[in-house]
Amino acid sequence: MEKGRFTLPGEAGMEAVIRELAEKWGADAVRDSDGTKLTDEITGMGLLVYSTLCLIRMDNEWAKAHPECRQQTYLLTEAKTAFDKELEIIIMEHYFSEQFEPNTDTDIKKYWQVSDRTKGEPVDSWEYKDGKVIIKEAVPFHQYTVSFPAWQIWEPVSMYNHLTNHWTKEHKIPVDIRYPEAREHILKVLEQWLEDHPGTDVVRFTTFFYNFDLFYNQYGKEKQVNWFGYVSCVSQLAMEQFKEEYGYELTPEDFVDQGYYHTPFKNPDKHYLDWMEFNQKFVASFAKECVDLVHSYGKKAIMFLGDHWAGTEPYGRYFKEIGLDAVVGAAGDGVTTRMIADIPVKETEARFYPYFFPDIFHEGGNPVGESRPIWKKCRRALLRKPMARMGYGGYLSLASRFPDFIEHVTDIAGQFRAIHKETNGTKAHTAPFKVAVLNAWGSLRSWQTHQVAHSLWNQRCYSYLGVMEALAGLPFDVEFISFEDIIKKGIPDNTGVIINAGDGGTSWSGAEYWSDMAVVTAIRRFVSEGGGFVGIGEPAAYLREGKYFQLEDVLGVQKEIGFTASTNKCKAVKTEHFITEDCTGAIDYGEGMTMIYPVSAGTKVLDMVNGSCNLAANTYGEGRAVYIAGMPYNDVNARIILRALYWAAGKEQHMYQCFSSNLYTECSLFLQAGKFCLVNNSEEVQHTQVYLGGAKARAYTLQPMEMCWDII
Amino acid sequence: MEKGRFTLPGEAGMEAVIRELAEKWGADAVRDSDGTKLTDEITGMGLLVYSTLCLIRMDNEWAKAHPECRQQTYLLTEAKTAFDKELEIIIMEHYFSEQFEPNTDTDIKKYWQVSDRTKGEPVDSWEYKDGKVIIKEAVPFHQYTVSFPAWQIWEPVSMYNHLTNHWTKEHKIPVDIRYPEAREHILKVLEQWLEDHPGTDVVRFTTFFYNFDLFYNQYGKEKQVNWFGYVSCVSQLAMEQFKEEYGYELTPEDFVDQGYYHTPFKNPDKHYLDWMEFNQKFVASFAKECVDLVHSYGKKAIMFLGDHWAGTEPYGRYFKEIGLDAVVGAAGDGVTTRMIADIPVKETEARFYPYFFPDIFHEGGNPVGESRPIWKKCRRALLRKPMARMGYGGYLSLASRFPDFIEHVTDIAGQFRAIHKETNGTKAHTAPFKVAVLNAWGSLRSWQTHQVAHSLWNQRCYSYLGVMEALAGLPFDVEFISFEDIIKKGIPDNTGVIINAGDGGTSWSGAEYWSDMAVVTAIRRFVSEGGGFVGIGEPAAYLREGKYFQLEDVLGVQKEIGFTASTNKCKAVKTEHFITEDCTGAIDYGEGMTMIYPVSAGTKVLDMVNGSCNLAANTYGEGRAVYIAGMPYNDVNARIILRALYWAAGKEQHMYQCFSSNLYTECSLFLQAGKFCLVNNSEEVQHTQVYLGGAKARAYTLQPMEMCWDII
Repeated sequence: MEKGRFTLPGEAGMEAVIRELAEKWGADAVRDSDGTKLTDEITGMGLLVYSTLCLIRMDNEWAKAHPECRQQTYLLTEAKTAFDKELEIIIMEHYFSEQFEPNTDTDIKKYWQVSDRTKGEPVDSWEYKDGKVIIKEAVPFHQYTVSFPAWQIWEPVSMYNHLTNHWTKEHKIPVDIRYPEAREHILKVLEQWLEDHPGTDVVRFTTFFYNFDLFYNQYGKEKQVNWFGYVSCVSQLAMEQFKEEYGYELTPEDFVDQGYYHTPFKNPDKHYLDWMEFNQKFVASFAKECVDLVHSYGKKAIMFLGDHWAGTEPYGRYFKEIGLDAVVGAAGDGVTTRMIADIPVKETEARFYPYFFPDIFHEGGNPVGESRPIWKKCRRALLRKPMARMGYGGYLSLASRFPDFIEHVTDIAGQFRAIHKETNGTKAHTAPFKVAVLNAWGSLRSWQTHQVAHSLWNQRCYSYLGVMEALAGLPFDVEFISFEDIIKKGIPDNTGVIINAGDGGTSWSGAEYWSDMAVVTAIRRFVSEGGGFVGIGEPAAYLREGKYFQLEDVLGVQKEIGFTASTNKCKAVKTEHFITEDCTGAIDYGEGMTMIYPVSAGTKVLDMVNGSCNLAANTYGEGRAVYIAGMPYNDVNARIILRALYWAAGKEQHMYQCFSSNLYTECSLFLQAGKFCLVNNSEEVQHTQVYLGGAKARAYTLQPMEMCWDII
Repeated sequence: MEKGRFTLPGEAGMEAVIRELAEKWGADAVRDSDGTKLTDEITGMGLLVYSTLCLIRMDNEWAKAHPECRQQTYLLTEAKTAFDKELEIIIMEHYFSEQFEPNTDTDIKKYWQVSDRTKGEPVDSWEYKDGKVIIKEAVPFHQYTVSFPAWQIWEPVSMYNHLTNHWTKEHKIPVDIRYPEAREHILKVLEQWLEDHPGTDVVRFTTFFYNFDLFYNQYGKEKQVNWFGYVSCVSQLAMEQFKEEYGYELTPEDFVDQGYYHTPFKNPDKHYLDWMEFNQKFVASFAKECVDLVHSYGKKAIMFLGDHWAGTEPYGRYFKEIGLDAVVGAAGDGVTTRMIADIPVKETEARFYPYFFPDIFHEGGNPVGESRPIWKKCRRALLRKPMARMGYGGYLSLASRFPDFIEHVTDIAGQFRAIHKETNGTKAHTAPFKVAVLNAWGSLRSWQTHQVAHSLWNQRCYSYLGVMEALAGLPFDVEFISFEDIIKKGIPDNTGVIINAGDGGTSWSGAEYWSDMAVVTAIRRFVSEGGGFVGIGEPAAYLREGKYFQLEDVLGVQKEIGFTASTNKCKAVKTEHFITEDCTGAIDYGEGMTMIYPVSAGTKVLDMVNGSCNLAANTYGEGRAVYIAGMPYNDVNARIILRALYWAAGKEQHMYQCFSSNLYTECSLFLQAGKFCLVNNSEEVQHTQVYLGGAKARAYTLQPMEMCWDII
């Protein structure tokens, strides 16, 4: 059996199990984690040793001795209505007092902001006393908020682990590297640690310096989580340095942003983009110092993509400067797999779900049942873009109680290594055109769209995220582009199809960018000259000049929002089409849309649901467009997306270069290796016809979940 | 049997039937119509004679001889994309050439407008030739439109009748009374007609001078219909006079309005409000001249609310000046019944559906089946606000072939007269508070909300119109108020509950009015002091300062549109409530809503659908609010609205002053008459308990559709 490419979570007391599983799973590395330690026996097993470090919470004594170097954040109170002329706002009323402490040590008239949200203006006349902001001249029935910097008195990831596992140990305080003395101390601590741990081969940073936004409420429960947030990077010093560098001042509102805290669902404004860049540069520069230090001790430095990853931005401009040897990240589906796999770094490693935690690994639990659908999704993605290594997290002691799970992971590890062995590092065949996913964020948010926190189901997201999940395993080179890219550089060469998917008003759809002439004319030209456009949900949506979908002419459909209820609509007649050729039964559009109608008789209506044209195809000049009301991920929808993209690009015949007729199976072709891989994504036996090089090649029968390699 | 209050449609050749039905139905009047004539025998039957007149199409020869006095309209071409530097737009491409002729006799550089809709600006450099506008310096991939005044060469109502009934007679041309010579001629024609028709008792104007917006497309099919439109009032003369009166000029865009033609679904702007008022004053003034002339011949003058009603506005400021004796209108449901019944005029008359037309009165047709649900809805409304008279339209010759229908109308006529007899003109008991329907239009659009054309089902409307339909027959005094009313005068005295129902961005919800401090503070104050607020669909919706529903605090719910997807939501737990006490089974919310969530644990969640809080109740200060995701009309929803309004007003116990426990039945109390009326709105036998004066009074069993009167 092949070995390697596998990192095992180690745990003191489980030495025998580690030895057994390392053998069975072919592990070549072992690691510790927040909550587990490696014994000398473990580190002496001949496995590579990974050690987890979180620099900003490594020395709590120093943090306590330097309260001025604690991390901060900005908090916004919930809007409170004045029923009288005087209003008191208890600023911490809806926040967790064990997590935050208002920063009153600063110039509160400068760094705090009290706002009349009904008027939409800041208020000058207020005072602060004993945890309360008092507004003396409030306007009755106006609503007021207070935004204020708060000290982070409990590092939120550690807090999460603490509360989840009912720990009783001391609360860890996060240190802010914005202060020179903090940086100096962290480097000292790291150096000492490196001295003390000669047995460590790989330092695994989790992650670097600032956590994503994670606020708990007054009951100690999660209140707000934004995996993409930058508000924890804030300090008065950072704001001062920002002003020096960018020539203008940020206000509290630039951080709390009406309570949205710059959710990635909003188009970013200049201030926020500058703030992100400011922090990215800073984080990359100090992360490089740390990485260099690790390297100087002959160890590798890798980062875990999660927790304190704010500012690292693996798809950003400054990431490469850090000089990491690898990135490891949690892979819970195809999207997160690709999010890690596609990072421009030497090596990537997947930490697959499920964690070996008691929520799943308990008596009566079904870890194999949890893992199978996850592996199915990750596998599709790995066939497109393999990762160098895999692993799991949690407690081996728990996993070892489930022999069927041990066998299941053995199987997964075998499949994982087979991808490398069979393909020999060659690239999977892809369509002869690129698919560009267009939104306000572009490449920075590659495989990071339509998400609140990765792999977390959200009702506002799944109907769009499904498209990305499908793409993660389809034979297309995917590029993420922004509206600014189009405005500045036009549509990238070799783009075959542009996808725009999202709710109107969000950054994923594009909101006001659709009023930009450069954007709409570039896309009209692109499509009319033979390009493809796939719109999902509310694509190109911005109400202006009589249209809601600005590209109604390209898409062939429009949404009735009421203002044209007086206008008669074309009769929609459902027709058969290349895109729906494999579909039987009702298509699942997720949350879907209402009142989408064809704008002319030229639009082909492929599906109607409750009077709404949920799937449509249109031609525009030499090009084509497809409209889809929403696409949660499932086998049928992945097939619809596959066909829609080939059809939109006008390259239907190319689909048969590598195609499996049964939609529950998928085929990946590795021309250079002379092989192809057929996977069964279902739990049933499937029969399928494989097409290679444009013609029907042979018939296959696949066992449930089977992965099968064959020679072309 | 009682007689009277009934107008029969007359028809030459049907004299015997008329005599028979007049007797059977108790008719006391007979009328002609567009397409039927009354013979001397008919007018000599001792019935009142109603004659239908449409002044603007009475003399086609004069219209042909005065082409400069033809009516006009503004048309907007569909947006056309420039694929090159030169763009040609065939301006009539999507319009019916038998209906319109572009007005090229005017200063086209002033009265026409060519627009770059991608840039959002008018274009200066263009020329017109042979039906085409040529833009020489178009920007490729920009979209262009042309707005131009067009002569109406076929009066649209007559055109509709003509095309529907396959007439072959000459097209009628509508004359524009804006021209003094047209007015002079019309008065002459009317006077002559009055001279010639001494047998006519009542002149029934259908209606006056300008039709609502009705555009046909290039295939001679309906393209656009807006029953509330004013674009047919336009002429260059009118625009000049407007400028003189209002001090500013209207542009073509003021009429075509991006193609929306000022749909009532949009908040009206100042220009449009001024234009409406300008025409209302003018229409009322000349209508008064016509009515006075009719009166001078000892005849009554009434108007049909429909067809050319633009500018008459029965709920407007100038309507009373016309001096009409009555208004007659088509009653197809409770809303249209109330729309006519509530008009401030001496008498109103309902013309009930269905028309005696071949679409329903054909072999195998079921006119009784058509009529029963309509009568059920109209009856509820008539019990709240009786109308003086009723009637039908169409051809008696068709109706007479359906003996069961003849019996059915006999029954309806009996019930109609019974309302007058039993109540003796006294008013039905209503709740001790008023219900105010709040939107951007207020009283002008009393019972005219959420509609494209009355009694026409529309997917964008029915989920809100159902609320109005319920209200039409519920024991509440209903007032329609606008945001401007609140801003200028505050919330009317004795208002118990404010209803705001509609999609976000529409005039029915209010759009940008919800950013007005005066509005939100007035409503917050009103509710906090004990008032009620019922929000349906997207109430108080305007994205601003971090909130979509601006009155989230009052409503207790918010809609997730993506920007707060990062924020954890309160767990919604369905609870029992006064409002849903009579409900069993799933509630029908029509199009409904998605992702409505309770904003705090204080919100009572009464129903959840697909993770959305579709029905909720909240307290706010001394007051209360109810949120409902949508309410198409049905018996269950009418009961929910009844209870929601009593609950929101904090007057639940008052509901039992007059209440029927079975929701398929309703009770109306006439205290002064000492009677109450119980109706069965279903097609099944129903058992119910009647509550009067706050206590259970007695049990009843009602036959299908039965109306039953009893003494208190």
